[in-house]
Parts: sequence; C-alpha cells; structure tokens
Amino acid sequence: MEIGIYSFGERNVDPETGQLISPAERIRRLLEEIELADQVGLDVFGVGEHHRPDYVVSAPAVVLAAAAARTRRIRLTSAVNVLSSDDPVRVFQQFATLDLISGGRAEIMVGRGSFIESFPLFGYDLRDYDALFEEKLDLLLKLRESERVTWSGRFRPPIRDRGVYPRPIQNPIPVWIAVGGTPESAVRAGRLGLPMALGIIGGIPARFRPLVELFRQAAREAGHPVPRLSINSHGFIADTSKDAADTAFPAFKEVMDRLGRERGWGPLTREQFEFSRSLHGADFVGNPEEVIEKILYQHELFHHDRFLLQLTVGTLPHKKVLRAIELLGTKVAPAVRKALGKDREDRGGRGDGGNSGGGRGRDGQKDAAAPSTAVGTPPATGR
Amino acid sequence: MEIGIYSFGERNVDPETGQLISPAERIRRLLEEIELADQVGLDVFGVGEHHRPDYVVSAPAVVLAAAAARTRRIRLTSAVNVLSSDDPVRVFQQFATLDLISGGRAEIMVGRGSFIESFPLFGYDLRDYDALFEEKLDLLLKLRESERVTWSGRFRPPIRDRGVYPRPIQNPIPVWIAVGGTPESAVRAGRLGLPMALGIIGGIPARFRPLVELFRQAAREAGHPVPRLSINSHGFIADTSKDAADTAFPAFKEVMDRLGRERGWGPLTREQFEFSRSLHGADFVGNPEEVIEKILYQHELFHHDRFLLQLTVGTLPHKKVLRAIELLGTKVAPAVRKALGKDREDRGGRGDGGNSGGGRGRDGQKDAAAPSTAVGTPPATGR
Repeated sequence: MEIGIYSFGERNVDPETGQLISPAERIRRLLEEIELADQVGLDVFGVGEHHRPDYVVSAPAVVLAAAAARTRRIRLTSAVNVLSSDDPVRVFQQFATLDLISGGRAEIMVGRGSFIESFPLFGYDLRDYDALFEEKLDLLLKLRESERVTWSGRFRPPIRDRGVYPRPIQNPIPVWIAVGGTPESAVRAGRLGLPMALGIIGGIPARFRPLVELFRQAAREAGHPVPRLSINSHGFIADTSKDAADTAFPAFKEVMDRLGRERGWGPLTREQFEFSRSLHGADFVGNPEEVIEKILYQHELFHHDRFLLQLTVGTLPHKKVLRAIELLGTKVAPAVRKALGKDREDRGGRGDGGNSGGGRGRDGQKDAAAPSTAVGTPPATGR
Repeated sequence: MEIGIYSFGERNVDPETGQLISPAERIRRLLEEIELADQVGLDVFGVGEHHRPDYVVSAPAVVLAAAAARTRRIRLTSAVNVLSSDDPVRVFQQFATLDLISGGRAEIMVGRGSFIESFPLFGYDLRDYDALFEEKLDLLLKLRESERVTWSGRFRPPIRDRGVYPRPIQNPIPVWIAVGGTPESAVRAGRLGLPMALGIIGGIPARFRPLVELFRQAAREAGHPVPRLSINSHGFIADTSKDAADTAFPAFKEVMDRLGRERGWGPLTREQFEFSRSLHGADFVGNPEEVIEKILYQHELFHHDRFLLQLTVGTLPHKKVLRAIELLGTKVAPAVRKALGKDREDRGGRGDGGNSGGGRGRDGQKDAAAPSTAVGTPPATGR
C-alpha cells in the first residue's frame, strides 16, 4: 500500500504565536513538510486547490513544482484540482510540465469541488456542477491520450486538431477521480477505468463499502481491470495518543466549526472527536500503533491501494507536524507495508494510477531524464 | 542596470547528438541555466509561454516555481505570459504563489503574443487581438490592486466582489508590458505607468528610439513617474568573437528560417547575421567586450534600466550555454554596472517594476518570509 499526505496550505491562527499565519510562512512550512515526507520515504504528497483567504494553495501545480525541485522520490499530486471550473488544457499543460520537472512523478486528481468559491470566480453556474465535471474530464482524458486533439463541448470553446504541449514523461500521466460519497461519481470513475480517491472525513467508514463495491463493479462491467483505490482522511499522529488528540482537537475544531457555520453543521464536541478517532470513526488521530491498526482495519473493509492523510486540518505547531510526518514515514508506513506483505518494489510497479483506455502501461516513466528522480527506487536502508 | 536572461525552453536538434532534444532534457537544462544565472549574480531570468512542439514552456509559473526552489536572489519573470488568451485570475494566482515561494522575487510580463497558437487553442478570435489584451490587462491590474474585486468585460465572465488568493508578498507584484514595436502598445504601457519590455530582435535598434520616447511621453502626460524600460534581444557570448558567432549561427539560422517559412521571411544568411551582431545591428553575439560595448551603446540610445538576453535562440551545446551565462554574469554585468556607475544596492532599490497607481512603493517586499531569498541582498564578494 502507498502511504502519503495531502494538504491545502491551511491558514489559521498559529497556536504557538496566537497570530494568523502569513501566506509566505505557510508556503515555507508546506514545502518543508513535502521535503520531509520525501526524506522519510512516504510515497505521495498532494496539495489541493481552494479560493479562500484561509487556504494558501489556489495553484497546485505551481506549489508542486517547487516541491519537485526539493524532492527525489515522492509522487506529487493535486488533491484536488477543481476541474469543473478550470480549463483542462491548462491543467494538463501544468501537470505535464510538473511531470518533466519531477522526472515522471506527477499525478492529477480531479474533483467536482467540495468548496464552491471557484464557480462564481471563474464564471460557472453551480446548476452545471456535474455536467461541467463530466465534460471537462472527457477533454482532459483526450489530451493525455493523444498529442493532437479535436474536441467540442458546451462549456469550453472547441479544439480543432491542435497539439497540446509539453507532453509528459509518463504516458499516460495518472488521473485520479476524487469522490466525496456520491454513488454516481464512484460509478463514473469505475466506468472510465480510472482510479478513485475516496474522501472519508466523517461518519462511519464501514458505510462506504457499498460505494467502493459500486466503483469496482462499474469498472468490471465496462471491461476494465479493477482500478486503484485511495482512501483520503483527516488525522494527526504523535508519540502518545493523548498528545495527538490534545494537539489536533483545537485545530480540527476551529476549522470544522468555521466550515460548519457556512454549511449548517453544529460545533465539534470533544466527545464527537473522540469517537471519530476510535477504530470505527473516520479520523486517524493517535499514536503510530493506533493509526497502523486503523489503516489495517480499513484495508479489510476496502482493500485500498493508497492511503492519504490530511495532517494539517488546521494550523498546528510546525514541529509537531514535522514529527507527525516522521512518525507516518518511519513507523506507520513500514508496519503497514509489512503487515500487508507489500514491499517497496511492489509499490513501484503498481503506481500506474489507472488507464483510461484500460490497456496501456506506464512505460513512459522509464524515459525519466534523471534516474535519481524516478519512482520505484528502493529507499535507503535503515530508515 | 539589471542584466538577465530569458528563454522559451527551445527544443531543436541538439548539435552535439544530432537528435531532437527531449522535453525532459530541455527542462533539466533550463533549470540548470537558471540556477547558474543566480549563482553568477545575474538579476533576472524570464521564461516565456508557447504552445508548440518546438518549445517546452507553456506554463511559465510552473517552471519558475521549480527554479525558485533552486535559486536565492535572482528575480523570476514570465517573458511573456500571453495574457490575451489566458485568464488574468489564474495568472495572478500563479504568480502570487510564485512570489510566496521565491520570497518576493516574482514578476509578470504580459504581451499580446507574437506566436498565435494560443488563440485557437483557448477559443479566442484573432480579430480581438488587441481588445482582448486591453481588457485582460485591466483585470490583472485590478487584481493586484485589491484583494476583493468587482469587474466585468466582454471576454471573461464578470466578478462580483470576490476575493482572489493567495496574495503575493510584493505589493504590488510587478507587471511589465512586452512590446514588439507597435507604437500603440508603447503608448498604452506609458499611459498606465507600467514598465515596458521592448523586444528588439531584428532591424536597426536606433530606429526604436521614437517608440521609447512615445512610451515615456505617454507616462509623463498621464502624470506617472517615468516607468522602467527593459530591452530584450537575441544573442550569444563566448570567450572569442569567432566562437560565439560560429556556435550561434547554425542555431539562429535553424530557428529563424523555420519561423521565416511560417511568416514569409527569407532564410538568414551569414552576411545578415554578421551585420546583426555588429554594433548597430540587433543581436548580441560576440565576446564579452563586444557585448559590453553594445549594451553601453544602446544605453546611450535608450537609457534603459534592464537588459535581457535570449541566449538559446535554438538548441546549442549545453556547456557553451552555461559558459555564456557565466560570461554574462561575471564579465559583462560587472563591467556594465561599473561603466554606468550603478552598484548592486542601487539596483536592489530600483526593482519595483512600476506601479499601476503611480504612487505605491514595493514595501511589501520587506515582508519576505525568508530573508535569505529577498532581493537586494548584496552578492557575496569576490565574484
């Protein structure tokens, strides 16, 4: 199983200073987090797009390109690009460029968008929420399929036999579909043979099993090999369970209560938080052993191929975030890999991220210009 | 005077291998070129947007973000963003992100576009060539002026009191207008009080004097302090004049002849090339002394504040490109600065890139999170 982290560059009051963290400082910390994640052998780092003052990332590929220059092995993905309100041509170009910069480590994760600020900003109508995504995904997949494209749709000007450049190293560059819980979205991903990143950030994870089954069944019915599945959740890790909970709770509460005021949830209580971090709840807040146990429990449920953790649900003390990354990379990931009998080479060979056509491999990756940046390199021993 | 380099990530047949250089290799070399330019004390590196197989850069901010992570002092600019066919909101967000990543070293250079591939690709009509630019520039300037924006126009959906994030460190982030030789464009830049980057890539540079005068006069008439001027030209530098010419000629000829076939120019002769590299011609191909003499000659003509050189007009032997960068940074730039009596501190204090409002300074730059990456730091001695 691949294990990684995702972040939106959250900007909240820093508990250490009592001040709102500046955008420059948040970017500096985020890049340090990605660099450390690479150093401790994690497999993936994702950054996601928001268009609000409380998140610093609105241009994921730009942030990931800086991270690419400071890392060697870790795969770099959006998590997510709000494709519905973007131009698939620009998204493809940016991630193809990232792929070149990183030596074939780029992935694109696209979603309809959980936050909706981007729709009015870029002139889209929320009534087209799903149609926009469907159409733009169609174009994105065409762009990765061939260098020259002819395409037309409702929401973007047509393209008449134009080339789109640069071409990425990976052929095809992985495209994941992020799904929040909508059955139709899971079926769409499966039907297209695309890997699905399922966000489980509340409720009872076991209840998502039917959704995962729908996804796999749709893939089988469409004649695709079963695509990969990622589970993306909130969490925090510290050396002790109590420290993890006491550190994460105020930050989680600040963020979830603020979002709750926008969306009509009640405030988060410590009791709810404690349930959510128990084995059957959605969050991964605890010491390494608790997080390992929960990942393995969910693996029984989902048989997923990748697990991504949002560590900085709110702004947390930077040193504790770095320690959490270290624990995830050096304690949790090796134990999970060992328990599932997957070694590093196996993970290297399975990183295709799905094929829209169902048939092509990720052979392009072997063309990576800089061998030191290719994925699948065994990590240094002793980590 | 600031001295720097710009590139489009040109992809031609590599004279050393006889093979077309791969996109991954071209990006690798480009990042190495930028890193070296920083190390030898050059002031600016620009990368420009094309949408053709023979150029690797279509997403300048993504490339520059990787460069930001590998450099400390050099300013990083697009050269250019084809703003007419892009969304100013995305461009602003990408460069604001770059500004955060680089500690306040980002600049945006926008133009109407010399190449026109982007217009059909993004669904624009060339008949709107100038109106598109005018309108999108208006929005870009509003976005840097205030966090929340209300705006409407013909070519992009309206924005009703939305915030655009992240905000850059520099306030305002510099916006330069790239001008190819159109008097109306020079007047527009001056009227807006924006710095102008004048591309002189052929003909007799002295004939561009009236254009520069138009630009400055328009600024004065609009009540702006006279904005900065950059001259952007083609060239190549080697230890000997003959080596510079013999190395550059085949590459220049390949590129200019290919473009000539598209645009109806005749093939480049060695005779024309030799004239172009003489004192009164447009190209800067020669040994360091010749290039110094020509920059100073043009400074008499234009009194410009910045000079940017496109070294890789076609694909050249990589080692020779690195040597050219070294010569520009260690021989040409110090001699030009000395002759013009400008020291490094002076340049640091003049890097504002113009203000649309005519009044605001670049005070935001002092907020740079990482002091080591702020511009204006004196270079290490002994370089």
